[in-house]
Amino acid sequence: MEWKEVSANRSFSGWQKVYDHESEACNGTMRFGLYQPENIDGDELPLFVWLSGLTCTHENFVTKSGFQAMADKFGIYVVAPDTSPRNQNIEGEDDSWDFGSAAGFYLDATQEPWSKAYNMESYLIKELIPQVIHKFPIDRDCIGISGHSMGGHGALTLGLKHSDLFSSVSAFAPICAPSQCPWGEKALGNYLGQDKEAWKDYDACELIKAGKFQEQLLIDQGVADQFLKEQLHPHLLVEACKDAGIGLELRMHQEFDHSYYFVASFLEDHFHWHLNQWG
Amino acid sequence: MEWKEVSANRSFSGWQKVYDHESEACNGTMRFGLYQPENIDGDELPLFVWLSGLTCTHENFVTKSGFQAMADKFGIYVVAPDTSPRNQNIEGEDDSWDFGSAAGFYLDATQEPWSKAYNMESYLIKELIPQVIHKFPIDRDCIGISGHSMGGHGALTLGLKHSDLFSSVSAFAPICAPSQCPWGEKALGNYLGQDKEAWKDYDACELIKAGKFQEQLLIDQGVADQFLKEQLHPHLLVEACKDAGIGLELRMHQEFDHSYYFVASFLEDHFHWHLNQWG
Repeated sequence: MEWKEVSANRSFSGWQKVYDHESEACNGTMRFGLYQPENIDGDELPLFVWLSGLTCTHENFVTKSGFQAMADKFGIYVVAPDTSPRNQNIEGEDDSWDFGSAAGFYLDATQEPWSKAYNMESYLIKELIPQVIHKFPIDRDCIGISGHSMGGHGALTLGLKHSDLFSSVSAFAPICAPSQCPWGEKALGNYLGQDKEAWKDYDACELIKAGKFQEQLLIDQGVADQFLKEQLHPHLLVEACKDAGIGLELRMHQEFDHSYYFVASFLEDHFHWHLNQWG
Repeated sequence: MEWKEVSANRSFSGWQKVYDHESEACNGTMRFGLYQPENIDGDELPLFVWLSGLTCTHENFVTKSGFQAMADKFGIYVVAPDTSPRNQNIEGEDDSWDFGSAAGFYLDATQEPWSKAYNMESYLIKELIPQVIHKFPIDRDCIGISGHSMGGHGALTLGLKHSDLFSSVSAFAPICAPSQCPWGEKALGNYLGQDKEAWKDYDACELIKAGKFQEQLLIDQGVADQFLKEQLHPHLLVEACKDAGIGLELRMHQEFDHSYYFVASFLEDHFHWHLNQWG
């Protein structure tokens, strides 16, 4: 679990760093961003995990969201992983923007040839996050997860499945029901096979129906989001949460689109919300 | 003075827009970013002009600085122009990162072939800023200018030369004395010719010696900035300001480098400072 420092930039009172490390789950080198707030006394501080969307790397959130101002102000470590394994020399890996590279969907693939590397769930839950917790003074009762679009799907599904690890879950414009939208059908079908039973483990609505639980969820969604109607389906999440007794706060924002301008506009609200959940 | 809207993204309570327009001074189409804060009553609001550094377009500040949170909070229009004319088919225009495209140095060139288009000073002062003031309710007593590196040089020189227009001037890691550093010698020599007398009109230290004046200046500079020693020379500006009675606040920041992480870390301080100058 050696990390190679790729870059280090002083940012507010802390440091924005980028590291490479070797991942068994993802069969190679993975890159991620980690903001380290000023922490002179080595206090146990919260950890915020951000999962990015299709076409992104670790870098988009790090350079475009302005999160460092908040991580500095509130004293929170923030980790921003990549969105898929890289350079696996799998045929078709780089052919489409919504599948393969930069489209790992935060799952463990079961289908050849993807299963040899496309295991983002195991990478995050068994490798990256435990390593961050091991190397830094993280308060294990204050670990939040959030993300955007495909990363919102990742935050919801991982947050629901690993509620022992994540004490707070939010999302921006998440793919709420990947089993029922073109992006999800393509990805889940290829990574998990055509038996839709297997898809339920990576579909937030299905996980909630199966009893996975978080007391509260916060979701922000732009009304002018070009992917809202065909891909995101927040209304299905509203129904599932209602039936399961999950307190979902879904905020619909007029005129906002799917961009990082939307994420940046409401990101501080999410930091406040996670802080509140942590108590 | 027709503007073509290239993009429009809702951002906080306002809009981040990007436009193209035709420039006579720059002999072609110029692109710029403009943040429009929520302004339902059409109140006269301040304008903040941001000039970017070498290799940048209008986009770097717009996507990487997080300024929209502040422009929204304080109710300020923010314009971010490009850093040079584009696509002039001048030999050598795209050969180096510190001259030609993305390196306009915010001056009016006198040397062929550059003088046909490389006239960023006239573009900003006679075209872009007047057009912004004409199209939006700008409080003409509250126009500030700032920038980074080459853009810090632009902010200082234009702010000093056009003190009737700019009531507040600040900069991040500016090229303080371009006549005395490699970047400046290359650019000024090629754009203005080898007679160094002509360079004085685009050198902040020389302008101050010649009597150009602003009561106050704020400059932030990273101590770990890789360009500090060879290119930036803030000590020369300190001397010039002292002799001229200009109140320069130069803040040196340990461990900070030349990146946008540095700019983002202190940008809100600059907004506060400009607001203070405007009274």
